[in-house]
Amino acid sequence: MAEIVELSPEPRKTGPVEVQEGPGITRLVLSNPPANTLSIEVMEALKAAFEACAANPDCRVVILAAKGETFCAGHDLKELTAHRSDEDRGRAFFERTMRLCSDLMQTIVRLPQPVIAEVGGFATAAGCQLVASCDLAIASEEAQFQTPGVHIGLFCSTPMVALSRNVAPKHAMEMLLTGERIDARTAREFGLINRVVPPEYLGTIIGKYATTIAAKSPLTVRTGKEAFYRQLELPLSEAYEQTAQVMVENMLARDAEEGIGAFLEKRSPEWTGQ
Amino acid sequence: MAEIVELSPEPRKTGPVEVQEGPGITRLVLSNPPANTLSIEVMEALKAAFEACAANPDCRVVILAAKGETFCAGHDLKELTAHRSDEDRGRAFFERTMRLCSDLMQTIVRLPQPVIAEVGGFATAAGCQLVASCDLAIASEEAQFQTPGVHIGLFCSTPMVALSRNVAPKHAMEMLLTGERIDARTAREFGLINRVVPPEYLGTIIGKYATTIAAKSPLTVRTGKEAFYRQLELPLSEAYEQTAQVMVENMLARDAEEGIGAFLEKRSPEWTGQ
Amino acid sequence: MAEIVELSPEPRKTGPVEVQEGPGITRLVLSNPPANTLSIEVMEALKAAFEACAANPDCRVVILAAKGETFCAGHDLKELTAHRSDEDRGRAFFERTMRLCSDLMQTIVRLPQPVIAEVGGFATAAGCQLVASCDLAIASEEAQFQTPGVHIGLFCSTPMVALSRNVAPKHAMEMLLTGERIDARTAREFGLINRVVPPEYLGTIIGKYATTIAAKSPLTVRTGKEAFYRQLELPLSEAYEQTAQVMVENMLARDAEEGIGAFLEKRSPEWTGQ
Repeated sequence: MAEIVELSPEPRKTGPVEVQEGPGITRLVLSNPPANTLSIEVMEALKAAFEACAANPDCRVVILAAKGETFCAGHDLKELTAHRSDEDRGRAFFERTMRLCSDLMQTIVRLPQPVIAEVGGFATAAGCQLVASCDLAIASEEAQFQTPGVHIGLFCSTPMVALSRNVAPKHAMEMLLTGERIDARTAREFGLINRVVPPEYLGTIIGKYATTIAAKSPLTVRTGKEAFYRQLELPLSEAYEQTAQVMVENMLARDAEEGIGAFLEKRSPEWTGQ
Repeated sequence: MAEIVELSPEPRKTGPVEVQEGPGITRLVLSNPPANTLSIEVMEALKAAFEACAANPDCRVVILAAKGETFCAGHDLKELTAHRSDEDRGRAFFERTMRLCSDLMQTIVRLPQPVIAEVGGFATAAGCQLVASCDLAIASEEAQFQTPGVHIGLFCSTPMVALSRNVAPKHAMEMLLTGERIDARTAREFGLINRVVPPEYLGTIIGKYATTIAAKSPLTVRTGKEAFYRQLELPLSEAYEQTAQVMVENMLARDAEEGIGAFLEKRSPEWTGQ
Repeated sequence: MAEIVELSPEPRKTGPVEVQEGPGITRLVLSNPPANTLSIEVMEALKAAFEACAANPDCRVVILAAKGETFCAGHDLKELTAHRSDEDRGRAFFERTMRLCSDLMQTIVRLPQPVIAEVGGFATAAGCQLVASCDLAIASEEAQFQTPGVHIGLFCSTPMVALSRNVAPKHAMEMLLTGERIDARTAREFGLINRVVPPEYLGTIIGKYATTIAAKSPLTVRTGKEAFYRQLELPLSEAYEQTAQVMVENMLARDAEEGIGAFLEKRSPEWTGQ
């Protein structure tokens, strides 16, 4: 990514989720290879990292990446299995895990900033769900996607919430019922990801998307992202009623006045985020 | 289009929206090039033209086209900006604009006749929304599609209502967050348009679609289009309940009796529209 | 299919819907060629056959196939027309037909077992709806798909419920408004089917899918399929709430304990279906 974005060479924060920062950009890196599994510790760290982004006025776009060859292999099966010896056979722990996981995914959807998944390798089960939950996803040609829960008796029922909001039902069902991997090109064809690039260009392309978005008015982007997911769940007439009002407020904001003024005067806009 | 459809060589109605007519076909042409922007005047004229189609028993299908190289560049930014000096900083005018625009788009969706977008050039912001709101869209190879509001601080929040009901969320988000153009082939791949043709064949292909649809029973087409958008917003069981009833009423209509009879007797049907 | 699945060479049940059985697999064959039309008799037989599958603990996956070159041509127009001479001009019979058809399609969606459409030829109107209603669909290169009701004055209003939940609105509208056929490759591109194979391999590929799914825990598959269609109709937060609970119950089931245990111990799981 060095070509176009300067990120802090040393992460500002280490642990299971490393945090790198550049101008307007925060890069969160899942850092418990080789599988980058979503243990309670990792999910809490990742959720906290997203919440820190939400609270950070300098952050305009978030990249979600991972260390090693696997983007994320989903839940930590050993951790889950260890709790089978709990008095309640694990029920309380499983509930905590699934609630935290669902919260984490919705934190991404509700984050004020766009989130771009940088997928360099396997994205499996809840790892595939992470990719599906991001606003954009760019993958290396070597990436693969899979919802393999059916192989181990545990249907990918929460991953499919995100998956089935990205791809057509028959494609989702094929992944869910067979548990087989799809390659990056197929994932792109299905609509699960935006773009497939050679592995050596992944950072550059991700950086291009991130800097493009970071150059926009953060108020405008936040307004639009929030409205996007809200209107998606509404009937057409209600969707128009709500977004028409969003447009009016957006028009009255300082950044739209500046942006439209700059456009008409053929100069570059200067955003204040207001 | 002359090859297969004879439209009135001189428009029946001139002004910002010209109206041409042929057998069963009405062609509405946005006629304020070069940008064909959607000022209040143009939106009112276009809405009125659609409403005239709805009231015209001879109109069986509508083509929405445009003069010049740009299909439609969206809202009239100069008109909007001029109202910033209003006492309310433009709020009332912006509300009027956004409400009228949303009404216009829903007029297309609710129009009894199918509407085919004939896209010869750029379709931008609310212009892209027009294309997304039509039932069918055929574009020239030179057409491009864009929701660039993010460049000027004004997220394309109403255009995205129509866009996100046509294409997968990640594709919509890429267009909305980057503001970058997609070409006609990409738009077809995304599901935003039905077909891409060489510019010199655009009229012929549009005419083929229009004459095909104009040859059907207008009652049947109206019934089906109305039911299509209604059932799309319902849960599966309710959708079946409503459409099963639509099928029964359709079966009892004169045109279904004629159409099925003609099919069984291997002759051509004669529609009465009843 | 002989290569990989052994189905009973003689159907266990004959009539308008033949039933073949193999290990964990039931193959239902529409057997009133040449058109395999969905008369009341055929729809009742097919619905009963699906219900028998639902009640059969040995059935883990269902294949829906057809005899002859046409997969299914939709409703029986002669039967419908004959009832025009009823006292009520056919209303009661049409209501019965449409209700039964809608019930049949929803029986497939609600069936505990996955249903794979094996499409060797034309799938038209309610026949296309059958394919769209299945969980997976594999077609021969010679298959074609069509919603041609508009040709005979009877819009495909119930078929479009299933169709529009599989493909993008503009693609659905093109099929519905023009009534024209699409080939198998286009159907795959639209998302209506999963895969297109040479006719001589159709049985082999279908068998591969069926045996793959039949080898999974039937409890897991049933749980997942049921949750899939339920969550699809819910807003995101409710979808997560429901599926998180599904995951917890699934985790506590015997088959997930066995499956996860087997995975961690690198052995093959043995399902009990509990």
